[in-house]
Amino acid sequence: MNIRPLGDKVVVKSLEAEQTTKSGIVLMGAAKEKPQEAEVVAVGPGGVVDGKEIVMEVAVGDKILYSKYAGTEVKYDGVEYVILRQNDILAVVE
Amino acid sequence: MNIRPLGDKVVVKSLEAEQTTKSGIVLMGAAKEKPQEAEVVAVGPGGVVDGKEIVMEVAVGDKILYSKYAGTEVKYDGVEYVILRQNDILAVVE
Amino acid sequence: MNIRPLGDKVVVKSLEAEQTTKSGIVLMGAAKEKPQEAEVVAVGPGGVVDGKEIVMEVAVGDKILYSKYAGTEVKYDGVEYVILRQNDILAVVE
Amino acid sequence: MNIRPLGDKVVVKSLEAEQTTKSGIVLMGAAKEKPQEAEVVAVGPGGVVDGKEIVMEVAVGDKILYSKYAGTEVKYDGVEYVILRQNDILAVVE
Amino acid sequence: MNIRPLGDKVVVKSLEAEQTTKSGIVLMGAAKEKPQEAEVVAVGPGGVVDGKEIVMEVAVGDKILYSKYAGTEVKYDGVEYVILRQNDILAVVE
Amino acid sequence: MNIRPLGDKVVVKSLEAEQTTKSGIVLMGAAKEKPQEAEVVAVGPGGVVDGKEIVMEVAVGDKILYSKYAGTEVKYDGVEYVILRQNDILAVVE
Amino acid sequence: MNIRPLGDKVVVKSLEAEQTTKSGIVLMGAAKEKPQEAEVVAVGPGGVVDGKEIVMEVAVGDKILYSKYAGTEVKYDGVEYVILRQNDILAVVE
Repeated sequence: MNIRPLGDKVVVKSLEAEQTTKSGIVLMGAAKEKPQEAEVVAVGPGGVVDGKEIVMEVAVGDKILYSKYAGTEVKYDGVEYVILRQNDILAVVE
Repeated sequence: MNIRPLGDKVVVKSLEAEQTTKSGIVLMGAAKEKPQEAEVVAVGPGGVVDGKEIVMEVAVGDKILYSKYAGTEVKYDGVEYVILRQNDILAVVE
Repeated sequence: MNIRPLGDKVVVKSLEAEQTTKSGIVLMGAAKEKPQEAEVVAVGPGGVVDGKEIVMEVAVGDKILYSKYAGTEVKYDGVEYVILRQNDILAVVE
Repeated sequence: MNIRPLGDKVVVKSLEAEQTTKSGIVLMGAAKEKPQEAEVVAVGPGGVVDGKEIVMEVAVGDKILYSKYAGTEVKYDGVEYVILRQNDILAVVE
Repeated sequence: MNIRPLGDKVVVKSLEAEQTTKSGIVLMGAAKEKPQEAEVVAVGPGGVVDGKEIVMEVAVGDKILYSKYAGTEVKYDGVEYVILRQNDILAVVE
Repeated sequence: MNIRPLGDKVVVKSLEAEQTTKSGIVLMGAAKEKPQEAEVVAVGPGGVVDGKEIVMEVAVGDKILYSKYAGTEVKYDGVEYVILRQNDILAVVE
Repeated sequence: MNIRPLGDKVVVKSLEAEQTTKSGIVLMGAAKEKPQEAEVVAVGPGGVVDGKEIVMEVAVGDKILYSKYAGTEVKYDGVEYVILRQNDILAVVE
């Protein structure tokens, strides 16, 4: 993947299964609650961020839980990602 | 349990007895006051978090009290958890 | 008592005499102003809290004054407590 | 006096002369502007407060000026006090 | 002058000429924009304030500019002063 | 380019393709969502910024993603730029 | 010029050409967007400001860009200035 996050930032992609109604309509977007489970697709190098030494504890491929109010959504090449600071990641799901 | 919290985070599960009305209806969700007693189900490793050395003082199985405004609720495998920073835990009930 | 507060937290119990009206009705709860005098029932161990060394200056049995907006109310075994950080305690009354 | 403030806290008592209207009615409370001049009645020990070394610069008996939005009002033995952090004291009046 | 400011605080007095309308009425108070030019009448000792070493850079008699939203107004002996932290003083006018 | 950002600031220019409707009208400005992809056109020297040592990790010509709420828009010589702190840059797109 | 800014403060004067309508009316004040380009007219000495060592990077005569929400406007001798902290200066225009 060609997104290289800076510092303690982590790029994740929601593990959001498409939701289809009985009539076959695919539900999208704002009406659905933002998912809180995601897969890590890129990890920043860590190092000194905002004057504090940060060691990265997640790796590409990890499934994570994050707060639904954290991070910034970005759309790149038609795909939606969320870019979080590692501190906004609550837990790794194993 | 397969949730591994990062840093100073702690996963807890509410000690909320099901509440049943006289007529047998089970009361759930938003209308009930969020409980403040919970059991610790997973504990982060501590270490340097946000530039400060954190030693974890709670263990899996501890019953704790926490502020009802603290933490993030997550639903995983159909179960609701709250993920708190250790600093949001007020006391251990023994 | 079996509540063990963490870090710089202190468990107190309001020194609130029951208020009885002339007709004998006991007044409770929200309509009364929250008292600001309390007795310490449990004291955390202090130590490094949020990156700062905290020495505990209050002891079980101390009567204290605290700001009526500070702390978190918890109900445990049917008794109401307030859990404060030591820094929210204004003074000890001797 | 038997109030012992903690850390950098200071107990003061307003230098508010009773105000009497021509008809002899004593004016009290919320309708009057909170006074900004007070006398120090108790001084905390200072020391390390919130991770910072604090040296107390005021003494019992000092007349001080303070911001009318600072501090916490407490009523003790029927007397109203304000408990301030030393940093909220603007000046000593000599 | 008998106001002794603490720490990094500075007492100033507005350089506000009385404004008289053509008809001779003296304009006062809230309707006029708070002046931003003032004369320093007392200077705190500096030293360690809020954990930081502060060296005082203004002296009694200096004319200063300050932000109209900074500081606390106090009335003492019938005179209105503003007490600022040195950091709220923008510039000395020479 | 003749804009020299200070400290940890970075000047970027939006990679915003002109959007033309079918009828040939060029859409501009407030009605379009602010783009989140930009090209770096100038990079500050880093060094000690706000008391913290900052090493610059982006270079002129980098394509970056940034939060649509970050930074300050400036217009210079008729061209619109956004000036960000490096910490507001989420990722470099390679 | 006789304004001496303290600490990390910088006095600037807007590079705002007078705007004259076709009918010759000079437009002033609130209805025009505050300019973001200015010339530095005085620079504070830097040094330890708010506990952090600040080195001044701008000089009198520099043309700068600044955020339109930063700084404090002061009027002195009939001239309007803006006093900024150096950190609010985005870039020097060369």
